[in-house]
Amino acid sequence: MSQPSNSNNAFFDVVCNQRAYRDLLSDPVPHELIEKILVAGTHAPSSKNSQPWRFVVVQEANIRSQIASFTREAWESFGRATVEDTTTKSFRDTEIWATEGFGNAPVIIVICGDTSVLPMGEMDSSIYPAAQNILLAASALGLGSLMALLPVFAADQALSKLLKLPDHIVPMATLPVGYPARKLGPPARRPIEEITSRDQFGAAW
Amino acid sequence: MSQPSNSNNAFFDVVCNQRAYRDLLSDPVPHELIEKILVAGTHAPSSKNSQPWRFVVVQEANIRSQIASFTREAWESFGRATVEDTTTKSFRDTEIWATEGFGNAPVIIVICGDTSVLPMGEMDSSIYPAAQNILLAASALGLGSLMALLPVFAADQALSKLLKLPDHIVPMATLPVGYPARKLGPPARRPIEEITSRDQFGAAW
Repeated sequence: MSQPSNSNNAFFDVVCNQRAYRDLLSDPVPHELIEKILVAGTHAPSSKNSQPWRFVVVQEANIRSQIASFTREAWESFGRATVEDTTTKSFRDTEIWATEGFGNAPVIIVICGDTSVLPMGEMDSSIYPAAQNILLAASALGLGSLMALLPVFAADQALSKLLKLPDHIVPMATLPVGYPARKLGPPARRPIEEITSRDQFGAAW
Repeated sequence: MSQPSNSNNAFFDVVCNQRAYRDLLSDPVPHELIEKILVAGTHAPSSKNSQPWRFVVVQEANIRSQIASFTREAWESFGRATVEDTTTKSFRDTEIWATEGFGNAPVIIVICGDTSVLPMGEMDSSIYPAAQNILLAASALGLGSLMALLPVFAADQALSKLLKLPDHIVPMATLPVGYPARKLGPPARRPIEEITSRDQFGAAW
């Protein structure tokens, strides 16, 4: 059953080097790469194989600019307040991205859930794995992305109206995609020993 | 920025061949593979990099057997009723798995969310990407798995009690892992043209 170890290594290289890229160039992303990313998204599992994801791929400048406005408004009205420590570099990077940088992304993939094929109560566990496939696929292709929920929570269902979503199509996340302004190193993570239990919670792994 | 195309291909091979494996051998899974899978899980993105995932890795036979019982009870009390067409092979495979097969898996990774580091309202979009990394990593290593929510929804918080989860640790999904009884081919998926819009919903991709 096992695949050759070199293919394993290539896979784990992609997974273990994924980063949230906020600083993206405005250079266009080739059409065939966008399609390859979307195909990866569709290969995620879903409840009863309902494949409830629907994609709106936004490249038109005015629509991208409006999504960037929603992001800024959501950041200022409630996003900023959810951050406890506002003295970190991470906070400053996020603030610059949410208020100015978001609009640079040449492609914004809006991943939506179709409630006519799966109830909302089962949607999250079927949509966010597809979103993760998209983020990983972008990374595998040398592109940068991240999962951004702020525009989804903009006031008055502004995103749904802008994208002309019917009532049964619910926006779940936006995934800005573009070439990174600069490559980031691998992310730091807590070691698994600190967060893993054996058989029952609290038993040392 | 781009990685060599052979590493791209290996990554997309893993993504596009992921299947939900219900028929697993009871053969043990080497410890180092379990750890490699968990490390992949921790490399998912999360809201404000909170890394809210906590893993309980169940291998003890009695605890696995009880989780299998919860799965059967949840299937019989409400899971079966959510399936519209009960005449398909897919339904029969799921029914056999939910009532008998689940207990065969030698490893059950229970992925939980720690509400002391991230509110429940933001948990789904931070936990299910990590679950997807785990499923993909298992696939890359020649193992089979799938995302099973039935035990999470068993009556009376039975899973939380069994695993001795404190109140702030919420079970989000169970991921049974083992060697597949037989290798499955790549999954069929709707073409992206059918589910993708350009700029606004309904505009042809």
